[in-house]
Amino acid sequence: MEINLISDTVTKPTKGMLAAMMAAEVGDDVFKTDPTVNKLQTLAAERFGMEAALFFPSGTMANQTAIKLHTQPGDRMFCDKWAHVYNYEGGGAAFNAGVTSQLIDGHRGMFTADQLRAVAAGNIDIHSPFNRLVCIENTTNKGGGACWNFKELEAIREVADQEKLAYHLDGARLFNALVEKNETAAQYGKLFDTISICLSKGLGAPVGSILLGSEEDMQKALRIRKLFGGGMRQAGFLAAAGIYALEHQVTRLAEDHEKAKRIAEVLASCTYVSKVEPVDTNIIIFNVSDDVDIEAFMSRMQSKGILFISMGQGKLRMVTHLDINESMLSLLIQQLKEF
Amino acid sequence: MEINLISDTVTKPTKGMLAAMMAAEVGDDVFKTDPTVNKLQTLAAERFGMEAALFFPSGTMANQTAIKLHTQPGDRMFCDKWAHVYNYEGGGAAFNAGVTSQLIDGHRGMFTADQLRAVAAGNIDIHSPFNRLVCIENTTNKGGGACWNFKELEAIREVADQEKLAYHLDGARLFNALVEKNETAAQYGKLFDTISICLSKGLGAPVGSILLGSEEDMQKALRIRKLFGGGMRQAGFLAAAGIYALEHQVTRLAEDHEKAKRIAEVLASCTYVSKVEPVDTNIIIFNVSDDVDIEAFMSRMQSKGILFISMGQGKLRMVTHLDINESMLSLLIQQLKEF
Amino acid sequence: MEINLISDTVTKPTKGMLAAMMAAEVGDDVFKTDPTVNKLQTLAAERFGMEAALFFPSGTMANQTAIKLHTQPGDRMFCDKWAHVYNYEGGGAAFNAGVTSQLIDGHRGMFTADQLRAVAAGNIDIHSPFNRLVCIENTTNKGGGACWNFKELEAIREVADQEKLAYHLDGARLFNALVEKNETAAQYGKLFDTISICLSKGLGAPVGSILLGSEEDMQKALRIRKLFGGGMRQAGFLAAAGIYALEHQVTRLAEDHEKAKRIAEVLASCTYVSKVEPVDTNIIIFNVSDDVDIEAFMSRMQSKGILFISMGQGKLRMVTHLDINESMLSLLIQQLKEF
Amino acid sequence: MEINLISDTVTKPTKGMLAAMMAAEVGDDVFKTDPTVNKLQTLAAERFGMEAALFFPSGTMANQTAIKLHTQPGDRMFCDKWAHVYNYEGGGAAFNAGVTSQLIDGHRGMFTADQLRAVAAGNIDIHSPFNRLVCIENTTNKGGGACWNFKELEAIREVADQEKLAYHLDGARLFNALVEKNETAAQYGKLFDTISICLSKGLGAPVGSILLGSEEDMQKALRIRKLFGGGMRQAGFLAAAGIYALEHQVTRLAEDHEKAKRIAEVLASCTYVSKVEPVDTNIIIFNVSDDVDIEAFMSRMQSKGILFISMGQGKLRMVTHLDINESMLSLLIQQLKEF
Repeated sequence: MEINLISDTVTKPTKGMLAAMMAAEVGDDVFKTDPTVNKLQTLAAERFGMEAALFFPSGTMANQTAIKLHTQPGDRMFCDKWAHVYNYEGGGAAFNAGVTSQLIDGHRGMFTADQLRAVAAGNIDIHSPFNRLVCIENTTNKGGGACWNFKELEAIREVADQEKLAYHLDGARLFNALVEKNETAAQYGKLFDTISICLSKGLGAPVGSILLGSEEDMQKALRIRKLFGGGMRQAGFLAAAGIYALEHQVTRLAEDHEKAKRIAEVLASCTYVSKVEPVDTNIIIFNVSDDVDIEAFMSRMQSKGILFISMGQGKLRMVTHLDINESMLSLLIQQLKEF
Repeated sequence: MEINLISDTVTKPTKGMLAAMMAAEVGDDVFKTDPTVNKLQTLAAERFGMEAALFFPSGTMANQTAIKLHTQPGDRMFCDKWAHVYNYEGGGAAFNAGVTSQLIDGHRGMFTADQLRAVAAGNIDIHSPFNRLVCIENTTNKGGGACWNFKELEAIREVADQEKLAYHLDGARLFNALVEKNETAAQYGKLFDTISICLSKGLGAPVGSILLGSEEDMQKALRIRKLFGGGMRQAGFLAAAGIYALEHQVTRLAEDHEKAKRIAEVLASCTYVSKVEPVDTNIIIFNVSDDVDIEAFMSRMQSKGILFISMGQGKLRMVTHLDINESMLSLLIQQLKEF
Repeated sequence: MEINLISDTVTKPTKGMLAAMMAAEVGDDVFKTDPTVNKLQTLAAERFGMEAALFFPSGTMANQTAIKLHTQPGDRMFCDKWAHVYNYEGGGAAFNAGVTSQLIDGHRGMFTADQLRAVAAGNIDIHSPFNRLVCIENTTNKGGGACWNFKELEAIREVADQEKLAYHLDGARLFNALVEKNETAAQYGKLFDTISICLSKGLGAPVGSILLGSEEDMQKALRIRKLFGGGMRQAGFLAAAGIYALEHQVTRLAEDHEKAKRIAEVLASCTYVSKVEPVDTNIIIFNVSDDVDIEAFMSRMQSKGILFISMGQGKLRMVTHLDINESMLSLLIQQLKEF
Repeated sequence: MEINLISDTVTKPTKGMLAAMMAAEVGDDVFKTDPTVNKLQTLAAERFGMEAALFFPSGTMANQTAIKLHTQPGDRMFCDKWAHVYNYEGGGAAFNAGVTSQLIDGHRGMFTADQLRAVAAGNIDIHSPFNRLVCIENTTNKGGGACWNFKELEAIREVADQEKLAYHLDGARLFNALVEKNETAAQYGKLFDTISICLSKGLGAPVGSILLGSEEDMQKALRIRKLFGGGMRQAGFLAAAGIYALEHQVTRLAEDHEKAKRIAEVLASCTYVSKVEPVDTNIIIFNVSDDVDIEAFMSRMQSKGILFISMGQGKLRMVTHLDINESMLSLLIQQLKEF
């Protein structure tokens, strides 16, 4: 039995989802005539109370499109030093949009409105990149699935308004935050200019992300998606999975969170574990003691079918998701205790 | 009954293909662990006798990746004035790669080795874009599905070698040419540095294209695909359709060609048609007489469920594909004759 | 004695110009406090009746800045197939601005409003680069110093307005056209959105070009010039030469034209010359007979101190300028006749 | 009497320099035939013991060209959080080169080899920008003219070699460091892949910077300079000033440093000054007490003809240079004491 805790991206469609996919009515989405893609986009826009939505093959493309549509080459975007858009999208802001990133030294991937104000305030000068965009990620990936305080997000909106910055939310794992904090998609829809959500992480769809925003911005996004080569034909098979995920697989994220907390508790009780980061949602980040050989630990676990990743600097990461069931959890806990 | 002749991209999976998709074993292709994607890539590389292959969400992204991997910003690429990479990829060569396009005035989307030599020969000078790439399209889309003479393609290879140009084939409809001309994928694999093929046109898969080339170039392509946001997770569902297409739906392209020729013959016999371009494969381009109102003609046909497009300058285009069956063809012919 | 007919860029400052340079009051132009640069910019803007002007180290940078300020990455610009901005600026439109160039097949570097309409008209579609700019060059360099018909330029303005294209004039040798056709800078200032003029060609200044346009566009230009690294410090020494050129060395361009026509007449009478292009201003383009070895001809002339260039495809080019005096002209004519 | 301490860029040529400029033998540097530009380039290359040198209209363009020639779009460069290339070049690394900047949290604009190793070490992964370049600035502008420890620069070279990073020195004020630390240009020439030096700061030339490196890199630089529009014609007038500066105005930088130290001492003794940063060379950065109104202080000084700038966050900056003489210094000191 493989217990793959590498990421929540590794999930495979449930039976219900697979049935929905295979029953999908499809068309050619490049001509905007795939009814299932259209339905997914409408569903998502409605849930967030935003004007329009657009389907993408990946969250990276959804985020990169957002960065591009809000900026011009030579502009600057602000994000946390651990932000996915900076660290894991290949340098795309500079490559795709000619945009300079200014990192903010936040806590667990989250910064404050005051920190933003300190770097973004002031007149535009031709010697500096023009400040144009602030991007936050909720929950934070590298920050261990941490959830932002909504009040802080509102305070950042105020700074963004004062400094005329667009405000983008990388919501790859936003639904984890919504479920954990009892928040609604609509409150986020009101706050941000654009939001990307991922269907293929905790929600369990095989492929796809959605970008949400104004009708005008989504027209721009369509053009940019074309330039990146993100227009797909009978994408309805993928969209059907997305619809199923939004309708049936959101609330169950609470189970992933509960499992993650149980794993964290076990880790905290292990003598060879030196530190366990707080667990807000489905990501557990921990360190082993200096006298433990990380590679040996990981390969021992691997021999038991337990997979997870090293994030560098001694940090290890496990992610729970819908393909991790109770019996896997028991086996995992047993192995962690035995080591 | 809708008879959609707008493009061969509008096809929906056959029963066999859908079953293959449903049965696909999938994994996370971002971690290169989707067995079906890997199998498709191996199958394609083998068929063309090339080292490696990479799956893409679209042909545009496969072509744009090829352009980017062969060039640096400030370089120049040569292509026909009707080339898809210039006309229908949004200006991507300049947007994504900073590359200048120099158009060659070919015939039906095809130019000669001599024409290339005339514009590409000579020393590199810092005042001009650096010549680095020649790109051809087979069959030609805007050229009415025309097939290149393989000898000419070989002669172009010689010019490319002399001028140190990379040589890319946009093979969105390459299989139509192979079937029509009794050529093999392997002879193309030997000739070109990179080849893109599309699975979602005549081959009938819902989504996806493949880029083929050397191992080294495909490593670069993987990086560029990441930057464009083209990495997908459980893409095996789409890849399964691609495998099915390559194994079961290639030779049947001959039927599309035969149907296209029959439509062309009927058109040629209609008094209101002033010109029918030669039909090599599955694309029919024709003009109606000046005294015929194009919009009226198209909307009359539309009222009968017959859809096709206007390409501007009086040209109309019909494309045959696997969802056009004999009874549709009969109805179409009847309506064309009746008009 | 060297008779350098390679280009009108090779001129050295006259005594009066050098004295003006030496006496220049300078400041730090990056802080906008160089009084001589400011004076030059005001003078140029006034002469063209345009709101503002900005000094650049080169005409290439002035043109590239214009292209960048009118466009966004993914846009398209239209220009003649012989345009300097396409052929001799290194591929800068794509490199610096991500802009696709569409070449128009004009005559001697000049196209018609109808030709522009044929390629630029129509709706914007996401599959194509967005049409945004038309750029013309007067006089045309590669077209042999040809002057546009002002009526045609007005007709192009109409097309530009209909299609919402910006309209840029590469006026590297505009003053040659003004002098030859008895036109005024002001009539050009009214017609174009931006105009670049070169001070270091026929006008005889050592370094520098000026971009003219609206106050708003010149603010954008200042920012782009900064990004290219075109901001200079005590640039007043160069600007002083520019002021001197505009005040003292414009009307004398007529002498260069007269000399060029005399050279063309002599060439036309030489049996070894097969063709002489029409000479409108200070550029002479001619072909020698097939039985004449071009290299031998050029090196023979070079041995007499006479320098000029080959443009490829058998075309040779001579350019007259203020450092070509009557005695040089006599010697040149003698040598041409003797060959 | 104006005492302009805003920057050392505001200097005007000395009599000797002006005479050298006006006596300059010039040619067309675009054709590489300006003897004075060639002489300056040779002189600079020899002094640094590097293969080749190229003249630029600005230090920004020299640095941006270096960044571009060492990288490809999607790459990453490392620099201090206060680096000029990041803060004052408009976002050029992203705009011109598609390069992501990763800032290092150094001290006074200087970081350690260990800090670089911590962020740059490790395998290249397609999810991250590719590490390709480390850029340091000596002396540091925003760091108050601080000079790097040469041993640290050597240690950074080792990290660069291990991680296959190119190593660029922004030497806008390198000669200040050489004079202050008794170092030689040659030891820097040996250590770095490319070095930019500025002729128009402490050295007193009106315009221009030089980029130094290998023959191969300078060929690339020539091409990039062309694309940016940095090729100038009779640039020998500017180059002559540069030659004069290198030959006559280097050692006198010690006087600027001595004056800066005297100003710093006076400031340190003023009750209204809360902090004076260490003064290594010709830049003085200080803070006034919280109860002092900065604008009132600056405008009082301005009324006495004393100009300097605020750097934000309460920091004020004065820069000494060759146009600040003893009597100005006395007047400045008197005014500072009187306030």
